[in-house]
Amino acid sequence: MRLKIQREPGTLGVILSRLSRYGATVQAVDIVEASDNYMVRDITVSLEKYNEKELRQVVEQNQKAEVLYISDRILLAHLGGKIETGLKAQLRNREDLSTFYTPGVGRVCMSIHDNPKYAHSFTIKRNTVAVVTDGTAVLGLGDIGPEASLPVMEGKAMLFKEFGGVDAFPIALDTKDTEEIIKHVKAIAPVFGGINLEDISAPRCFEIEERLKRELDIPVFHDDQHGTAVVAFAGLLNALKIVGKDLSDLKVVISGVGAAGVATAKMLLTAGCKNIVGCDSRGAIWQGRQENMNGMKEWFSKHTNPLGSRGDVQDQLRGADLFIGLSAPDLIKPEHVASMAKDPIIFAMANPVPEIMPEDAAPHARIIATGRSDYPNQINNVLCFPGLFRGALDVQANDITEEMKFAAAKAIASVISDSELSEDYIIPSVFNKDVARVVADAVADVAYKTGVARKERKTAGSNIYSDPCDQ
Amino acid sequence: MRLKIQREPGTLGVILSRLSRYGATVQAVDIVEASDNYMVRDITVSLEKYNEKELRQVVEQNQKAEVLYISDRILLAHLGGKIETGLKAQLRNREDLSTFYTPGVGRVCMSIHDNPKYAHSFTIKRNTVAVVTDGTAVLGLGDIGPEASLPVMEGKAMLFKEFGGVDAFPIALDTKDTEEIIKHVKAIAPVFGGINLEDISAPRCFEIEERLKRELDIPVFHDDQHGTAVVAFAGLLNALKIVGKDLSDLKVVISGVGAAGVATAKMLLTAGCKNIVGCDSRGAIWQGRQENMNGMKEWFSKHTNPLGSRGDVQDQLRGADLFIGLSAPDLIKPEHVASMAKDPIIFAMANPVPEIMPEDAAPHARIIATGRSDYPNQINNVLCFPGLFRGALDVQANDITEEMKFAAAKAIASVISDSELSEDYIIPSVFNKDVARVVADAVADVAYKTGVARKERKTAGSNIYSDPCDQ
Repeated sequence: MRLKIQREPGTLGVILSRLSRYGATVQAVDIVEASDNYMVRDITVSLEKYNEKELRQVVEQNQKAEVLYISDRILLAHLGGKIETGLKAQLRNREDLSTFYTPGVGRVCMSIHDNPKYAHSFTIKRNTVAVVTDGTAVLGLGDIGPEASLPVMEGKAMLFKEFGGVDAFPIALDTKDTEEIIKHVKAIAPVFGGINLEDISAPRCFEIEERLKRELDIPVFHDDQHGTAVVAFAGLLNALKIVGKDLSDLKVVISGVGAAGVATAKMLLTAGCKNIVGCDSRGAIWQGRQENMNGMKEWFSKHTNPLGSRGDVQDQLRGADLFIGLSAPDLIKPEHVASMAKDPIIFAMANPVPEIMPEDAAPHARIIATGRSDYPNQINNVLCFPGLFRGALDVQANDITEEMKFAAAKAIASVISDSELSEDYIIPSVFNKDVARVVADAVADVAYKTGVARKERKTAGSNIYSDPCDQ
Repeated sequence: MRLKIQREPGTLGVILSRLSRYGATVQAVDIVEASDNYMVRDITVSLEKYNEKELRQVVEQNQKAEVLYISDRILLAHLGGKIETGLKAQLRNREDLSTFYTPGVGRVCMSIHDNPKYAHSFTIKRNTVAVVTDGTAVLGLGDIGPEASLPVMEGKAMLFKEFGGVDAFPIALDTKDTEEIIKHVKAIAPVFGGINLEDISAPRCFEIEERLKRELDIPVFHDDQHGTAVVAFAGLLNALKIVGKDLSDLKVVISGVGAAGVATAKMLLTAGCKNIVGCDSRGAIWQGRQENMNGMKEWFSKHTNPLGSRGDVQDQLRGADLFIGLSAPDLIKPEHVASMAKDPIIFAMANPVPEIMPEDAAPHARIIATGRSDYPNQINNVLCFPGLFRGALDVQANDITEEMKFAAAKAIASVISDSELSEDYIIPSVFNKDVARVVADAVADVAYKTGVARKERKTAGSNIYSDPCDQ
């Protein structure tokens, strides 16, 4: 931070000791400018986290110093944004100009005009996904608006490129209206080969995804719902191998019945799971419950909890095989884990603080996964979306189907061989570069088999008869 | 092209001679596959231009050959599109992930949420322009739709990056409705630092530009109108130095009263030009003319032709100092140029064939410019838009004003020094890399002076007190 400090003996010392009490380790004090009355100093401190207003108050408390500005490593790393336009060809001379721009480009336009499928060949539609948000449910920050959501969307675009080779562009929309959002996305769809919906709050995210899936001929995927569900399901597949249980016999408790909870429950049901109980802060959702309901909870009341079980989430855990937490920190205690069936599986995914910390669950749980990078078994969406869209784009898929999501989950799980598999290793690392390719191939394969792929499948020798512009 | 040819003596010979009659020089004949009944051959030919259907007919005429596909150098160069996502930082490890994505990115989001101007600091908004079209007036191809327009928009994005260092992203909209287009652009505006409208047909382009300029706080610029006007005006400034005439004394004839014609006439009027006559295919536009009018022509009838002159464009040229052609090929003959005032200036910008070819105008004209790259004095928008937006983005301008356009024109003209200036060199080359920087600096300077810039102007030493995140 840069401070303007009155030139009085002791002022700097008071500021430094206050900073230290706030938890800051002072790393450097530099002088930028000095006059008779004041000095401008740069103070560099190291802090785990900080609140700008608090920090300002700490320094300015005695009114002898003024904070000119505060910046930090992360803010400065973001200067200028995180993605840019890369050119896939050079513009060195007149010939390049007339190939890639006028007049040569006219023939490319007309070739797409005459044969619309060529948009997937000659334009960025082939490899480009829109990361669409309205900024209403950004990380744990809530409704912070489209501009403020951009750093997350750009970060997502980085992950798309780094892990899946997918070009992604952030579209942060200045509206929260469901119909408007649907209209805008449909209007910009010509440019894109896929739509990744991101951080749009429930329940609007359901309607938006469903309608766009129906009304567009390119894949539409709401990552907050299905990304989490796919990766959690992948972890579950591996966990079940270790505990030797069958999916159809599990008693599952899901804490948190929002968008990700619904998507996860749907995948589990489709896969054959019979006994799922969803819980919110008032406890189990059962058919007939009137209190504190909404559309997502109505869905849970209709499709889960076949025994009509009631009571709070801790009660539900008694005898359960699997806990899936998508809710709030520190919700369950070691004794609740102890009350579960033999070899309990805990997926405590509340971020950044899970429903129960791994060290607290460990004495009683057989397998523990969280959303955190500092414990084993991190359930992270980045294991899914880059490979999923890579596969979908590779075959010019017109949809992302249930089959494709299951294929992705199985592919993620398959990256860990049976001999590697252990309680501490049911989910591959986010930096495992095999994952995206394995996922992409599995997704493409299913897309071909189920007729979702628009591109012809290439077999050995078949390329003789196929249009080189349609590869 | 790849052909499947019946295995009969003489068949190939017939095809090759037909190709030669069509104007194709056969460069290579390769065998790809052979069976008892047919052969698959690749025939490589060189052709100035071709029509795919015609070429197919030429080959398939006798029904002994089937064209499997035709491709060419330009189409193949476009495979996969022309731009991609570049990452401005690496994602090598956990620390990178937590800096550029969760959890670190959360602080960047909140810093924008608390102080919206930081969107220009920490996101791609700082340097990114949307190239927006509805695909209705693409090059000379007309209304070919959004997908087919993409190769042009991507080409434009390449030019933005190559010449101005501006990141541009194509937004091809699937609607032609004026109000819808305005809504869509406003909705996506949070991501962008500027909007470049492109290839949207008149008269909708006027309303769209005007409304967006009023309703958005970022620069909006319809390149087809103003880009042409700015570069033509730049050429005129240098031309007038050579002929020693004053702008206010000129008699100007504008052939073509579409979007670019209106924008050019407006700039000339603002600069002090008094005697302008606009012409369409029915001749001069005069106040009171009823026949074949539209909004743009109404504007011409009200603001130009103060003497109420009538008659066709050729008549109008009599005694004129400057001809500006934005209309149709081969419209004027050498004798019409001969009828002009002393030292006539001809800007014949119809593309690809100008209103009069330079060699035909040369005996009578003092200065000739066209839109073509194969003659001196090419009037090409690429001299304007990259530098103009570069300057606007550099100062976080909230508009592109008349002053900024004139500054751009003067800057383009200034790149040619008085000693270099000649009849054949009034416009710098599109590959002159100085142009964009000179234009950007001039535009930024005017933006500061006229209060359009939102960024603080930096002066020597002033950076001590300024926020490093707001640079």
